[in-house]
Amino acid sequence: MAVNLAAPDPQELFAVAGVRVGHASAGIRKAGRKDLAVFELAPGSRAAGVFTRNRFCAAPVRVCREHLARGEVRALVVNTGVANAGTGAAGLADARAVCAAAAGAIGCAPEQVLPFSTGVILEPLPVDRLIAALPAAIAALSETGWADAAQAIMTTDTVPKARSRRVAIGGRPVTITGIAKGAGMIHPDMATMLAFVATDAAVSQAVLERLVRGAAVGSFNCITVDGDTSTNDSFVVIASGRAGNAEVIEPEGADFEALRVALEALAVELAQAIVRDGEGATKFITVAVEGGRDIAECRRAAFAIAHSPLVKTAFFASDPNLGRILSAIGASGIADLEADRLRVWLDEVLVAERGGRAASYREEDGARVMKQPEITVRVDLARGSAQATVWTCDLSHGYVTINADYRS
Amino acid sequence: MAVNLAAPDPQELFAVAGVRVGHASAGIRKAGRKDLAVFELAPGSRAAGVFTRNRFCAAPVRVCREHLARGEVRALVVNTGVANAGTGAAGLADARAVCAAAAGAIGCAPEQVLPFSTGVILEPLPVDRLIAALPAAIAALSETGWADAAQAIMTTDTVPKARSRRVAIGGRPVTITGIAKGAGMIHPDMATMLAFVATDAAVSQAVLERLVRGAAVGSFNCITVDGDTSTNDSFVVIASGRAGNAEVIEPEGADFEALRVALEALAVELAQAIVRDGEGATKFITVAVEGGRDIAECRRAAFAIAHSPLVKTAFFASDPNLGRILSAIGASGIADLEADRLRVWLDEVLVAERGGRAASYREEDGARVMKQPEITVRVDLARGSAQATVWTCDLSHGYVTINADYRS
Repeated sequence: MAVNLAAPDPQELFAVAGVRVGHASAGIRKAGRKDLAVFELAPGSRAAGVFTRNRFCAAPVRVCREHLARGEVRALVVNTGVANAGTGAAGLADARAVCAAAAGAIGCAPEQVLPFSTGVILEPLPVDRLIAALPAAIAALSETGWADAAQAIMTTDTVPKARSRRVAIGGRPVTITGIAKGAGMIHPDMATMLAFVATDAAVSQAVLERLVRGAAVGSFNCITVDGDTSTNDSFVVIASGRAGNAEVIEPEGADFEALRVALEALAVELAQAIVRDGEGATKFITVAVEGGRDIAECRRAAFAIAHSPLVKTAFFASDPNLGRILSAIGASGIADLEADRLRVWLDEVLVAERGGRAASYREEDGARVMKQPEITVRVDLARGSAQATVWTCDLSHGYVTINADYRS
Repeated sequence: MAVNLAAPDPQELFAVAGVRVGHASAGIRKAGRKDLAVFELAPGSRAAGVFTRNRFCAAPVRVCREHLARGEVRALVVNTGVANAGTGAAGLADARAVCAAAAGAIGCAPEQVLPFSTGVILEPLPVDRLIAALPAAIAALSETGWADAAQAIMTTDTVPKARSRRVAIGGRPVTITGIAKGAGMIHPDMATMLAFVATDAAVSQAVLERLVRGAAVGSFNCITVDGDTSTNDSFVVIASGRAGNAEVIEPEGADFEALRVALEALAVELAQAIVRDGEGATKFITVAVEGGRDIAECRRAAFAIAHSPLVKTAFFASDPNLGRILSAIGASGIADLEADRLRVWLDEVLVAERGGRAASYREEDGARVMKQPEITVRVDLARGSAQATVWTCDLSHGYVTINADYRS
């Protein structure tokens, strides 16, 4: 029961010249489920990515980093069901075997393939079934394969997540299309999901790397569902260079800005879609903290609220038990915070000031806002001019049910 | 449904000479519920405490710190229902009014009374009802009032928590008796609860302060239910000095050690009782991390496991989805951790080594341990000789239900 999140209309997912997408059912964990996606990139495409900082990162993440450092990328292979994390040397060999098989089928070097996995940790990847399904996925390759691929990368997601937009770069129309998966084990640095975004814009490798890092900071690194950082987070941006624009080679200027803004907006939409479809989510919560000395302390306060199980269960109950928000801020570790100067709003309702409940606050106003499916918590720390926004969802019985049953 | 936790037998709660305990029903939030406890200390008693580090700490916590700094303590007044936190200047005045009323009834100075509150944040303390019930609580004062007081300080607790023990100090029998409350909003630094422990031992103020800090580190600061740090945490140790032992004035030697060990053992029992009665708990989990470079990183890894909602829901489901434990360790922020050297056990079952599932691991062994009501997760970081242990519980539907309904 995702919050205000509809499946994308395939008609509104624009093809990206030079990028073909296919999918298949490999039976990784369950027979008949779409669980394999392949991206084929035209020669000359560029790719850049950011990955989980989990020290127990998955084998495919290690291989991705290695292959991205080598140069040109020609294909991405994504499976769900098994994360190929906590699989040791055998897991690395499995990820390399997938690359080799895809390379053979597509006609490129194994180092030009990036592997991605998501699913259960600590179980071996059924690499034979995956490789056996590769021909079907490759046969299905199409510039219009995005909607199917968005489905093929889902795990506990209830709604496929895909977005497109067009923007003019140097007077040429440029397309950006992306898909993402993620619903649980969602936590920033690196946001806990897979996301693949492609554009036909021509950009230099250095600019592409700058763009992907910048887009992650303002989108996937601003969301949390449960504070758990996955072993497999990956966000990759592909640029096929087919749009005919003058190559963007400097991280400044109008073309760079137009591309940066469009890419970040799309990444924010995908990131918010992950939260809207957060495991068991019934509410979409925006936490905006302003008046901090720096962005880091604003994020610290915002994530303290967004991670608090007590705050999240109060949202689930539509209970304006708002002292829990104050307590979360107070415990966020901002050592010299003056609690008496804080102000807290629920949408437009001033809840707390001067260390206590606002004189104007009425329980019925709080209750009214808490009933909405989308709520903004605004906090003024009143000690500076920095601000930060994060997005999260509530904590419901659905979360417990999904995660108590996930493997079964 | 607390995990292996029975209510204390009143016969096994030993009186502490010089300390009388009373209770009453003040109707703070609900009529007829025991919600007020009073401790009266004989002249010459000493007290020391540690308190929440939440910047939004409650008014009574501020007053406690102030009064403890002044000197002799003659009474403690504890209410449940309303936390008197996030109540601004009015809350401070309310806490002082409670002290003044208790002082008048007992015959001491207001600065000799310590106030404590626990319950809903951001609501005004119904100070008139509280003060009106003080005479009844004072009339009930008795050296055998501990069991009733343990009930009177409960909020979402399902089982009262009280323990006693006797130890010889300098050849004299010394009694230590304590009570605690807490079930949710439980997180270390400071552990999120109220605990009051009294002894008849004679100890200097400096030694008492050392004892209370030391006992907190190894007990209440080693537990978590939900990672939320409360606004009202307080752990106070009272020493009435009536046991007739030679006053312990140095933080070393056999007498100090005997007292330290006994007090810490009692604090650990109370802390574990809080986790056993954690909101919705169905499992009691010990997380023991060894082989760290220092205690701090062992605690970091242990709390990463203990806080992870995914780990906690897997315990609830009795599902040996043990990759979640590895992922939590990997994301705990130990920057140079070598995941391939880690080893993880579930009780005696080796689960992971060499970056993956142990060759000897069998799913049925993991499933067998996961079904137990008490489970130990042991982790060897294999990079040093430090170790740390923390205690937590699982995350169940009960937790969500309790916290979605708490105010209603």
